[in-house]
Amino acid sequence: MGFNCFNKEDSLFYDFRLASTTVILQLICPDRPGLVSELSGWIAYNHGNIRHADHHTDNEAKLFLSRIEWDLESFSLDKKSIKSEIRNLAIDLHGKAQVSFSDEIPRVAIFASKQSHCLVDLLWRVKLGELQMQVPLVISNHPNLEQICNSFNVPFHIASINQTNKYESEKHILRLLNEYDIELAVLAKYMQILSKSFLAKFSNIINIHHSFLPAFKGAQPYHQAWERGVKLIGATAHYVTEDLDAGPIIEQTIANVSHRDEVDDLIRKGRDTERIALARALRLHLRRQVIVYRGRTAVFT
Amino acid sequence: MGFNCFNKEDSLFYDFRLASTTVILQLICPDRPGLVSELSGWIAYNHGNIRHADHHTDNEAKLFLSRIEWDLESFSLDKKSIKSEIRNLAIDLHGKAQVSFSDEIPRVAIFASKQSHCLVDLLWRVKLGELQMQVPLVISNHPNLEQICNSFNVPFHIASINQTNKYESEKHILRLLNEYDIELAVLAKYMQILSKSFLAKFSNIINIHHSFLPAFKGAQPYHQAWERGVKLIGATAHYVTEDLDAGPIIEQTIANVSHRDEVDDLIRKGRDTERIALARALRLHLRRQVIVYRGRTAVFT
Amino acid sequence: MGFNCFNKEDSLFYDFRLASTTVILQLICPDRPGLVSELSGWIAYNHGNIRHADHHTDNEAKLFLSRIEWDLESFSLDKKSIKSEIRNLAIDLHGKAQVSFSDEIPRVAIFASKQSHCLVDLLWRVKLGELQMQVPLVISNHPNLEQICNSFNVPFHIASINQTNKYESEKHILRLLNEYDIELAVLAKYMQILSKSFLAKFSNIINIHHSFLPAFKGAQPYHQAWERGVKLIGATAHYVTEDLDAGPIIEQTIANVSHRDEVDDLIRKGRDTERIALARALRLHLRRQVIVYRGRTAVFT
Amino acid sequence: MGFNCFNKEDSLFYDFRLASTTVILQLICPDRPGLVSELSGWIAYNHGNIRHADHHTDNEAKLFLSRIEWDLESFSLDKKSIKSEIRNLAIDLHGKAQVSFSDEIPRVAIFASKQSHCLVDLLWRVKLGELQMQVPLVISNHPNLEQICNSFNVPFHIASINQTNKYESEKHILRLLNEYDIELAVLAKYMQILSKSFLAKFSNIINIHHSFLPAFKGAQPYHQAWERGVKLIGATAHYVTEDLDAGPIIEQTIANVSHRDEVDDLIRKGRDTERIALARALRLHLRRQVIVYRGRTAVFT
Repeated sequence: MGFNCFNKEDSLFYDFRLASTTVILQLICPDRPGLVSELSGWIAYNHGNIRHADHHTDNEAKLFLSRIEWDLESFSLDKKSIKSEIRNLAIDLHGKAQVSFSDEIPRVAIFASKQSHCLVDLLWRVKLGELQMQVPLVISNHPNLEQICNSFNVPFHIASINQTNKYESEKHILRLLNEYDIELAVLAKYMQILSKSFLAKFSNIINIHHSFLPAFKGAQPYHQAWERGVKLIGATAHYVTEDLDAGPIIEQTIANVSHRDEVDDLIRKGRDTERIALARALRLHLRRQVIVYRGRTAVFT
Repeated sequence: MGFNCFNKEDSLFYDFRLASTTVILQLICPDRPGLVSELSGWIAYNHGNIRHADHHTDNEAKLFLSRIEWDLESFSLDKKSIKSEIRNLAIDLHGKAQVSFSDEIPRVAIFASKQSHCLVDLLWRVKLGELQMQVPLVISNHPNLEQICNSFNVPFHIASINQTNKYESEKHILRLLNEYDIELAVLAKYMQILSKSFLAKFSNIINIHHSFLPAFKGAQPYHQAWERGVKLIGATAHYVTEDLDAGPIIEQTIANVSHRDEVDDLIRKGRDTERIALARALRLHLRRQVIVYRGRTAVFT
Repeated sequence: MGFNCFNKEDSLFYDFRLASTTVILQLICPDRPGLVSELSGWIAYNHGNIRHADHHTDNEAKLFLSRIEWDLESFSLDKKSIKSEIRNLAIDLHGKAQVSFSDEIPRVAIFASKQSHCLVDLLWRVKLGELQMQVPLVISNHPNLEQICNSFNVPFHIASINQTNKYESEKHILRLLNEYDIELAVLAKYMQILSKSFLAKFSNIINIHHSFLPAFKGAQPYHQAWERGVKLIGATAHYVTEDLDAGPIIEQTIANVSHRDEVDDLIRKGRDTERIALARALRLHLRRQVIVYRGRTAVFT
Repeated sequence: MGFNCFNKEDSLFYDFRLASTTVILQLICPDRPGLVSELSGWIAYNHGNIRHADHHTDNEAKLFLSRIEWDLESFSLDKKSIKSEIRNLAIDLHGKAQVSFSDEIPRVAIFASKQSHCLVDLLWRVKLGELQMQVPLVISNHPNLEQICNSFNVPFHIASINQTNKYESEKHILRLLNEYDIELAVLAKYMQILSKSFLAKFSNIINIHHSFLPAFKGAQPYHQAWERGVKLIGATAHYVTEDLDAGPIIEQTIANVSHRDEVDDLIRKGRDTERIALARALRLHLRRQVIVYRGRTAVFT
């Protein structure tokens, strides 16, 4: 079956493949005068037509952050040469750089558990072309969401976790990520904590936490929020780090609540904030609009 | 079944059937002292336990609006007697009243066209138990969304409309609404204008308009919004009336936009505001929290 | 001088004195059937015309909360009798009740320190009639804001606090509150912690905390927020309790921030969220729309 | 002076004078490859250290918009040379450019009528250093707000307007704007329509309209909004053009309303949205973050 009923009128799907390819440079390095000129000069010298250019200076840390996007077609260097020249440039600048090409669609694994709302939302946005990524596999510790994945024609793998098999289960997951050549993992209400040793081997991971971090860290944030009697609840999409709930924040959304809302209402309202925050954060990441530095993010919109 | 992977852990589905039944009274009548006392006195006299009671007075029009919800179980009157007594009460008060029972799940038809986002969202929320309604049929003027309906096990009917067959097509639709015993229709991006004669025969209809009404009435509101250079876009869920885009507003949501957003970005961001506004409005309607008066709504939350 | 240039066209000032007087009952008691009927029956029996009636049931704690407002003019009981009958009613219901009259304008002391934004905003809203309260005195531990108070014709008292005189200073403040017959204190960026013994003697206090509580408790929340790299900042208006930053929340507001915002920008944006949250909370309190229970608030809007 | 109680602890006032001077270039010209490189190359060649650089391409109109800010101190050209070179650059690029220096504080006239909220808010933000501008005069068609201006030590001029003297009154105002060397006028609830001939002579004007434009154009938007039963109200800060309420939008803010809100409540809630929208728009303008093109604005934040 599958949602192959999606069609042109309905979606932007495939549009991005037809669009002409762009090069995206993300750079972070010590700040000094002349950096914008050098970067844009190099692009102009090679006949690049800049579409977007965004820079930020962290005055405290004296860091320069940049994201520049230009057309590949007219550019005088090919992909390989671009990567090599940028590598050298980053070394010269004592910084770090990453080059991406808009026609290379990232391979993303979605991790889920029993709740469907984020998973369905992400798969639907992929089908519609809002999120330009491939989903070669969904990994879950429970069988519940298999049929949803089937209906979207997305392979579903179970990696059940219990008190004794965590190490083996994570090894299994790492093999899958490697086998399927996965670049990014998205924890769509995965409800499991990835171990330090897992993160040492695969760390490009986005999580959705169901609170307005750093409020209500840890388990059952909606119960905590109800207990505290807050008038707003939130959701936070962030990169995963060893220190749980302390990773760099990409996006936060909120919803109003009142004394009439029970915990179940907070959970229901929270589903919408979670879906929106995760989808926005993922889109920003996929479009290479996020740079991580000093435990925080610069989001170039 | 499709999507039968939805399960207890994931959802509140069926919870509302297990919950004890409540009676919901919605009343509108000329204001005068003692109304709250009479209503609550009648309920107490019959051993009703009030769960929610909300009243509003329109001081200009001297109208009294009330929504009271109480337990059926302990109540000394049965459903039929309640309906009959409330009918008499409304006559006495020179007003209008409607009685609903929480265990009678409304039968709702969804009208769609080619765009899937609102339809998928509504069906998913029904499955999850957020929207307590039955969907005996989806009606569309295009075949595109049939497979989505199949995957949710919802019957799909095509009523194609062209320049010459509008009258026959609407007759066909009215037959379907009658045959399936439909109480409410939801226009989930239906993109067709229902005729005056249609509305004379079936008028309990909720629509989603993709702008912050009354701004950008009519066709292509996102193009209009882009042209005008607004910094916020909106969506409006409202009851359908003959005067297009002038029906009573139930819910409005907004999203920030900037000069960087093209028309396509407005359409993309708009999909989220449309989904949220329509789902919220429909939930409020289904829970009998909306009273229409003087071309506007009182929403008891 | 003074802002006596405020005038009819500009404001709603004095309107509330001309409006006919209402009685406001706030009640909290154990839940049982018939409570709404008994309350509204008593009001109807005494010829009261109900303007607003709001009830809430805390299902977990089996508590009934109610706020009813009705006209005094037509009512057959005078103020004294109302107070006495409600006192007896509360005893009968094993609950707590408070009666207020809309023509008795609360006497409120504002506590400030060096920052002017909340103080100016509150005084301006009082002048404009948005906040129906009297401000017989402003208390501050610094002389900075005296001229502002002078320009509004509001008495200004300094109660300086240092490491050795806290006890004496608080005694001085308590004498002032007593002398000026103060019902409520508002901490408008007071930046001092009131002692346990102070709160034992005067506890009807609203504070504005410059974060989205419970995130960023304690000192310098904007610095904490910047360090954490959040994408939203907030402000929280709450009642003061011994446990700092843990008091019942009345209102929370937020503002978007980005990586481009320095700590100073967070402080600047925060001023607007603080002013709005505090003014809204205070208005809700003054209109007797807030009931505190179980460390949280019911806000009847 | 009035309000000289403002002080260091309270404010950022004067900070901007101590900060080192920056040059701000705003440019709009036909798009072509190499523009970013040429601009940043020219700055680097003259030893400028870029602090902020923002560019936008309007793909439909093939227009390039740019805002670049760099340090004056280290720059090898003086103010006069910068202005002259940029003038030539703009001619070469067939575009328009504007150069500003952060130490040249704009002279702004505020126009008011009877309502004080926007005027007080703006003057207070100027005192606090949030708005880096001078206010050499306030112009009003009514005497009501004179004392407020006195308390801020701001000259107050009455230019009363009636059915017969509009032409003379506007001539008087134009003389004042000329005499006081005013660069920008802010209509802070001025409630008068400036004539076509006035705008031909002075057109750098920001207005606050009390609705979510283009909804509720014209008079009494809150009454219109109440009639329509909207669930959100808004305010729009925009540049003034001949076609009333059609000028380029800089900022829009909104507030939730419900059926419980009377017109007076909409007006009250609206005051906060108006103050915030106008203050934000004015700050953006003063920091030269707004570029107007094709009847709309690019806002570089």
